[in-house]
Amino acid sequence: MTTPLAAKIARDYGTPAAVIDMDRVERNIARVQAACDAAGVANRPHIKTHKSPVLAKLQIAAGAKGITCQKLGEAEVMADAGIDDILISYNLVGDEKMARLGALQAKANMTVATDNSTVIAGLPKAALLSGRPLSVVVECDTGRKRAGVETPAEAVALAREIAACRDLRFAGFMLYPTEPGWTEAQRFFDEALAGVRAHGLEPGIVSTGGTPNLKNVGKLRGATEHRPGTYIYNDRMQVAAGVAGWDDCALNIYATVVSRAGPDRGILDAGSKTLTSDTSGLEGHGLILEHPEARIVRFAEEHGFLDLTRSNTRPDVGDVVRIVPNHVCVVVNMMDEVVMVRGDEIVGILPVAARGKLR
Amino acid sequence: MTTPLAAKIARDYGTPAAVIDMDRVERNIARVQAACDAAGVANRPHIKTHKSPVLAKLQIAAGAKGITCQKLGEAEVMADAGIDDILISYNLVGDEKMARLGALQAKANMTVATDNSTVIAGLPKAALLSGRPLSVVVECDTGRKRAGVETPAEAVALAREIAACRDLRFAGFMLYPTEPGWTEAQRFFDEALAGVRAHGLEPGIVSTGGTPNLKNVGKLRGATEHRPGTYIYNDRMQVAAGVAGWDDCALNIYATVVSRAGPDRGILDAGSKTLTSDTSGLEGHGLILEHPEARIVRFAEEHGFLDLTRSNTRPDVGDVVRIVPNHVCVVVNMMDEVVMVRGDEIVGILPVAARGKLR
Repeated sequence: MTTPLAAKIARDYGTPAAVIDMDRVERNIARVQAACDAAGVANRPHIKTHKSPVLAKLQIAAGAKGITCQKLGEAEVMADAGIDDILISYNLVGDEKMARLGALQAKANMTVATDNSTVIAGLPKAALLSGRPLSVVVECDTGRKRAGVETPAEAVALAREIAACRDLRFAGFMLYPTEPGWTEAQRFFDEALAGVRAHGLEPGIVSTGGTPNLKNVGKLRGATEHRPGTYIYNDRMQVAAGVAGWDDCALNIYATVVSRAGPDRGILDAGSKTLTSDTSGLEGHGLILEHPEARIVRFAEEHGFLDLTRSNTRPDVGDVVRIVPNHVCVVVNMMDEVVMVRGDEIVGILPVAARGKLR
Repeated sequence: MTTPLAAKIARDYGTPAAVIDMDRVERNIARVQAACDAAGVANRPHIKTHKSPVLAKLQIAAGAKGITCQKLGEAEVMADAGIDDILISYNLVGDEKMARLGALQAKANMTVATDNSTVIAGLPKAALLSGRPLSVVVECDTGRKRAGVETPAEAVALAREIAACRDLRFAGFMLYPTEPGWTEAQRFFDEALAGVRAHGLEPGIVSTGGTPNLKNVGKLRGATEHRPGTYIYNDRMQVAAGVAGWDDCALNIYATVVSRAGPDRGILDAGSKTLTSDTSGLEGHGLILEHPEARIVRFAEEHGFLDLTRSNTRPDVGDVVRIVPNHVCVVVNMMDEVVMVRGDEIVGILPVAARGKLR
């Protein structure tokens, strides 16, 4: 079974193709902005999901305070497009990065994150190049064991290091509290807050993160902003997390069934070079909307292996199907453009402008 | 510990960066060509690994008969660069693909693969557009349960369908025999061969595949060519398969340690958007040459999580390390360019010209 739109996509663009429904994109943007507004927390969406200044500007037009990027290459694309309030939520290290950060800071209001003294020692180079102070937030580990200092005392020490540097401004704290662990995160933050206040410092930004965390936006007492990313498209992981329904999934991969070599199996023309091997802890590699009982069990680079044993309806070679990916951010990262639709109409092509920026 | 070359790469390009050693690339090309020559089997390297016409031409200059591609977008880049003997080892379906295949066949000698009648029914459109017959090989499943017919009888039936079509030429068989299963693959092929000969057909091409299979090149009696891909760069998977040593791994990801928030852990600036989540069945996500006891245990999109509990030497924030990826093909697929070096000298930038061609 191939939908009329899928037939059109296959005819005009070929498969595999990434297709975004702009009605859903706009609805997702509005809903999350409303949730942040209701919680009294600013929205600073993470653009790592879409990597498009066009979509970032839709988010800002809907009320977002600014944006979050994960690397300089993303921020450069966004600043070139005129976006001027950018948080890079990452430890930036090295002279090459300081030169680029300095150039960015000369044209946009940049904030960067740090969890160590080596990073802080390097940042003044960027500030000096730009001719003005650079805002720095301290990243705190609140349970994920990713980046982030492990104790409030370390957070306070880094805040003081930043504040002691003429070319830097202590801007606040960046956290990623998740369930379980809210009580612990609150305790961490409260202690860090008291610590910096004891030294006359005030965090202007207290930033929480994550689309799965949207149900808890504003829950951290003292939070000033949230940085969700995936919500603009959503994916199977967000549905599993209970923060989106299938109708909120705005990006589908359209793929063609290219082989049915056995009765219980088939091959899609979307493999790990389209959908990535990132399962995000889910079983199978995406949901096929036309055949929800079919399982994408594994990948070769350009083959998606279908197990059809549980399927009552089985696709034929040539059928075009729609797949909701497990983790949409890493899928979009591999493609130069996506096709935009509204309902059953194709409305254009959107470049993934900040893709391919390794750093 | 940062090597002088790593310091140069970080200074001139930043991290993460993909760096290929051209001395090793040329040595890998020569060694595999010699192995094919010694086995009396033509070499038709799969360019999905490097996606570069520059490197494809080095492979051809060393003696390769032609190249293998996995999709039209790759073949278009290669044909535009003047390469004229191209096998697309894939079921191509749909009018959009037939239009592009026809345009390709008008300027290069194309061969395509099929495992079903639907694909065969579509291919004459491409042949007619190009004004000349199109060569088609029948893909046989020899144990991988990927694409490929499951029985010699089906292979013979498809060969006859192809031969019966005025605009197509039956060109032979494509197989992917692996261990264990050689005896079975030989039996499959022998029976298919006898079957087509009984109908007056002769396979000009009998193609085997895979870099891990290089140790068996020529083992299939009747094989005429082999299509290895990964050998040009090699990776941790090839070392594990026993077909390459660490010194044969020509591509390294250079990454910076950006966080050491705990004594037993650290963060690299290379995550799933650089190294992919494709483990290829190995433990951990790559070998760090400077810290082989360190484990890259998991990823966020731009974070590689280091477990240092087994490491005697532990990197500092700011150190630049070299990583041999588990599966190099999917890593190269995400980047627009790689840095070329010879020993300790940077010699230039190589565009990954056929990257970003989803289809």
